[in-house]
Amino acid sequence: MQLGLIGLGKMGGNMAERLRRAGHEVIGYDHHADKRDVDSLPALVKALEAPRVVWVMVPAGEPTRATVRELRELLDAGDVVVDGGNSKFTDDQVHAQMLGEKGIGYLDVGVSGGVWGLENGYALMVGGAKEDVAKVQPVFDALKPPAPVDESGQALPGAGFVHAGPVGAGHFSKMVHNGIEYAMMQAYGEGYELLDAVPLIEDVPGVIASWTQGTVIRSWLLDLLVRALQEDPELEQISGWADDSGEGRWTVEQAIEHAVPMPAIAASLFARFVSRQEDSPTMKAVAALRNQFGGHAVRAVQAAEVEHPA
Amino acid sequence: MQLGLIGLGKMGGNMAERLRRAGHEVIGYDHHADKRDVDSLPALVKALEAPRVVWVMVPAGEPTRATVRELRELLDAGDVVVDGGNSKFTDDQVHAQMLGEKGIGYLDVGVSGGVWGLENGYALMVGGAKEDVAKVQPVFDALKPPAPVDESGQALPGAGFVHAGPVGAGHFSKMVHNGIEYAMMQAYGEGYELLDAVPLIEDVPGVIASWTQGTVIRSWLLDLLVRALQEDPELEQISGWADDSGEGRWTVEQAIEHAVPMPAIAASLFARFVSRQEDSPTMKAVAALRNQFGGHAVRAVQAAEVEHPA
Amino acid sequence: MQLGLIGLGKMGGNMAERLRRAGHEVIGYDHHADKRDVDSLPALVKALEAPRVVWVMVPAGEPTRATVRELRELLDAGDVVVDGGNSKFTDDQVHAQMLGEKGIGYLDVGVSGGVWGLENGYALMVGGAKEDVAKVQPVFDALKPPAPVDESGQALPGAGFVHAGPVGAGHFSKMVHNGIEYAMMQAYGEGYELLDAVPLIEDVPGVIASWTQGTVIRSWLLDLLVRALQEDPELEQISGWADDSGEGRWTVEQAIEHAVPMPAIAASLFARFVSRQEDSPTMKAVAALRNQFGGHAVRAVQAAEVEHPA
Amino acid sequence: MQLGLIGLGKMGGNMAERLRRAGHEVIGYDHHADKRDVDSLPALVKALEAPRVVWVMVPAGEPTRATVRELRELLDAGDVVVDGGNSKFTDDQVHAQMLGEKGIGYLDVGVSGGVWGLENGYALMVGGAKEDVAKVQPVFDALKPPAPVDESGQALPGAGFVHAGPVGAGHFSKMVHNGIEYAMMQAYGEGYELLDAVPLIEDVPGVIASWTQGTVIRSWLLDLLVRALQEDPELEQISGWADDSGEGRWTVEQAIEHAVPMPAIAASLFARFVSRQEDSPTMKAVAALRNQFGGHAVRAVQAAEVEHPA
Repeated sequence: MQLGLIGLGKMGGNMAERLRRAGHEVIGYDHHADKRDVDSLPALVKALEAPRVVWVMVPAGEPTRATVRELRELLDAGDVVVDGGNSKFTDDQVHAQMLGEKGIGYLDVGVSGGVWGLENGYALMVGGAKEDVAKVQPVFDALKPPAPVDESGQALPGAGFVHAGPVGAGHFSKMVHNGIEYAMMQAYGEGYELLDAVPLIEDVPGVIASWTQGTVIRSWLLDLLVRALQEDPELEQISGWADDSGEGRWTVEQAIEHAVPMPAIAASLFARFVSRQEDSPTMKAVAALRNQFGGHAVRAVQAAEVEHPA
Repeated sequence: MQLGLIGLGKMGGNMAERLRRAGHEVIGYDHHADKRDVDSLPALVKALEAPRVVWVMVPAGEPTRATVRELRELLDAGDVVVDGGNSKFTDDQVHAQMLGEKGIGYLDVGVSGGVWGLENGYALMVGGAKEDVAKVQPVFDALKPPAPVDESGQALPGAGFVHAGPVGAGHFSKMVHNGIEYAMMQAYGEGYELLDAVPLIEDVPGVIASWTQGTVIRSWLLDLLVRALQEDPELEQISGWADDSGEGRWTVEQAIEHAVPMPAIAASLFARFVSRQEDSPTMKAVAALRNQFGGHAVRAVQAAEVEHPA
Repeated sequence: MQLGLIGLGKMGGNMAERLRRAGHEVIGYDHHADKRDVDSLPALVKALEAPRVVWVMVPAGEPTRATVRELRELLDAGDVVVDGGNSKFTDDQVHAQMLGEKGIGYLDVGVSGGVWGLENGYALMVGGAKEDVAKVQPVFDALKPPAPVDESGQALPGAGFVHAGPVGAGHFSKMVHNGIEYAMMQAYGEGYELLDAVPLIEDVPGVIASWTQGTVIRSWLLDLLVRALQEDPELEQISGWADDSGEGRWTVEQAIEHAVPMPAIAASLFARFVSRQEDSPTMKAVAALRNQFGGHAVRAVQAAEVEHPA
Repeated sequence: MQLGLIGLGKMGGNMAERLRRAGHEVIGYDHHADKRDVDSLPALVKALEAPRVVWVMVPAGEPTRATVRELRELLDAGDVVVDGGNSKFTDDQVHAQMLGEKGIGYLDVGVSGGVWGLENGYALMVGGAKEDVAKVQPVFDALKPPAPVDESGQALPGAGFVHAGPVGAGHFSKMVHNGIEYAMMQAYGEGYELLDAVPLIEDVPGVIASWTQGTVIRSWLLDLLVRALQEDPELEQISGWADDSGEGRWTVEQAIEHAVPMPAIAASLFARFVSRQEDSPTMKAVAALRNQFGGHAVRAVQAAEVEHPA
């Protein structure tokens, strides 16, 4: 089928490529002139036959909002806009209403797969009305991973694709996916650090590689950790600095909103916050208190290397 | 090759079966008379040709200690004892010394795979001397998973087997594996709970099944969660009660010993402790404090249902 | 001075009493007819001489919003409304603007002290414009605790009162105060539970009472814990069920918003969530996973008492 | 009464002074020649009239063990050794047995109060036999804080002193005290950091000072935080580096041993571990994973300042 795709960056560009390989016609627009098939959103809309499907793959927040606003003026009743970016699920409700007032459908799609999606396929979590999902289904089928294979040999229904619920359910599902991702990465990280801390373990990358077959903790992330350690066995070239995207924060916010205890995911989010701090105000206060009551050694800012008490 | 195997329970029995399918001769002993090939440890040792390999697969702690003690009296210099149970790595040092005084070798092997190992193979993490590893290698090769396949298509060296270091390194590696396992399970659990808490998600099992292909968080544990939800979509038949084995506790203890921050794994361990409490003394104290300073509603033990303030 | 006070519940009623003892004229309104001095907000406003100060002490959210809305219609430029309730600091900005459009001043005041405030005084954290603070200062002086005494003998400037910043700063400060409160209560609770878990400690209430003098952890909350244990030495009459007010949640939300790591306070909030769950969906998922991979004993919902594996 | 005191450092020296002020005769020994009254342990023992009380105030571990070993040879049946240092409670059982074989009594005493104890008194948590406690009671009475005053006006029995149980109970109680201390300090630190992170709060030290009267979170530690902020309002002169003593680690270890959930105290311990790391291996692994699956920006070790992606 025919698809308009707005945003041809790392994710969008690969998705266009995968769709074209599957025989779909993708007309792409990007604000970078060298990547795009048309020069403007009006040109994009004009190039598509109604009923149109326009997939938006631009940064969450204002860029997506502005694109939806412009599409609202350009599209007609019966067309469908798909937001495949990382929007917050609460934005979806706003977008759906903006477009719905003109009879334009809206789907929110959480997309997972990263740079590997071009070859492996993208997992898709979709929110919206059934009739809108049906209109875009051929695109979903081309993007999603091919064979729902269960490692333990049994067929798993629905692997790689779900229609999770009404508008917002797609991005909500992807948000939770990312929250889980944070805690899994933290779990592997903590295990790696403990292995690395003891002389007893003479082959840390070997231990981690051994886990990729037959263990309870084998996973794709673990495979990636093995790759990283193959390239840099002591992770000497990388700093322990980890950004966080909105999804991790929103997951914990939603947990709080719904009184869901979420200690492991929250701890993983906080560990990322800590990783980006030059110095910790919390621990300054703790050090100041230790100094006050016990005359404990503190590490003065000016002379940290010298006065280090341990 | 020939192997003596002590302990023919759920794990040991399946391992014997897998070894026999691979053409090895397994002579098994168990304290249950109906499963065993020989009636006593002396009979087992007598049935093996020197140099002997005896694999111990009995509960950690005193049962393993007693078995090692008895084998010490029965075996000869050049024989090798393998502890494939869940011993603490500090026990391994004791066992190795006990046996080493008589010239008997000792290997500790962390084994992962559970009830799936018979078909899929067992991941093996080995600690001990190179020459002892060499003597048992054919057995390791038969137990470990067959094909080191990387999901992303590239060969991963050493999947399913590692010689991690000297005596203790095998069980230490398996211990860390289990610590990671706790946090991964907790991560999936927290994500599941949040999905389940919001009406927006109309198909929770579907969302989780969708994650098994193409996502960052796909894993064998996730496949198992999908299976569990297929059998019982709302987990109505299962109670939120989770035991913990020694490994999870030892992992956090070792983290503390080596000043390794381990917030996600520790949180997961604590969540299991909480899951087994009838009532929480900590929260009784918190409730008592709230009552003291604010006259806040508390839930009296005798009349919880009636006085519930919310 | 003269003050209108709306809301004569547990907090408001005691505050009115404390102000009257200090010689101030308090005209009180409440929706309960038996407590109030006037029968309506218009009557309240009429009874006050301009420039008026009206202190609102009603539940946060819609009740406070509605009161502010009505006062907006009744008051005149130069009057000041004080919100001493538990409003979220973001509400304050809305209220200040609503009133400011008519020239009415607005102060937000975080009030701490609970049922003890009548005798001990109330700690006050104030947000708003300097000139508005000045108008209400006599009331603040009567409400706040009398003597800024430092336990270690040295004078502490500003104990019990602060003008923390512009509108919102008062409730923000109180919000953080409550977040800290959660973690302190959790800390004492965890310590109590460990003492209670070991036979070695024969006098748990005695140990806790001993901490109230000379230790690093002495505090008012600790004094209250001692009282609670005097009344019920094993906390047998109280259930481990703890509600949470908005402030604890908002504190963690704000931490996430500002990338502030907040592991201890968040853990304390989550512990309260857990305390109110009949069963934990997270731990159901964990138990289901354990069952899938290991054939581990699970505790079926119907027969928990019988099948308890430990 | 007469007391031998071994170890005249920061704690021991002040305790000797407080005891002398109370009229007791203290004969002190220290390995520093300039502080001591006698030149050797034999001389100390000789200077004391039987039945002797010898208070040991030296570092935990081998120094205390060696002192106990030497005293075992010097003392007679009926004498009492008091360990007032920071020994692990499991050491106490060893010491008690070593001495008990010769009829020498043993008490373990957890001492809190830091540099303030000389003036304010020391809180004492005691473990051991009743008859031994009785022998030392006059010394305990002189060391402990004078007046058991409750802030809320009511008498608190046993403030500042407890006989907590048999040998080990004193140090166990002090250990738990320190665990609670960690979480309280962390709680104040987290609250301080959030206040400091928002421009809304214009007077952070003022807010914290306001909390010292009338609030739920007032405490001695809070008074100390106010002092620290008076000296250095932005904590510019102190680095966020916090050591941990054995007690915090042992508290969490014991929680694990007894299946006590301890999320807030454990989080506080881990925060200290993090504070002392140059870089975090856990977060290196997390960053490496992010790089693998998403091509996310990572911060290379060599060029952190330049490549910082945010």
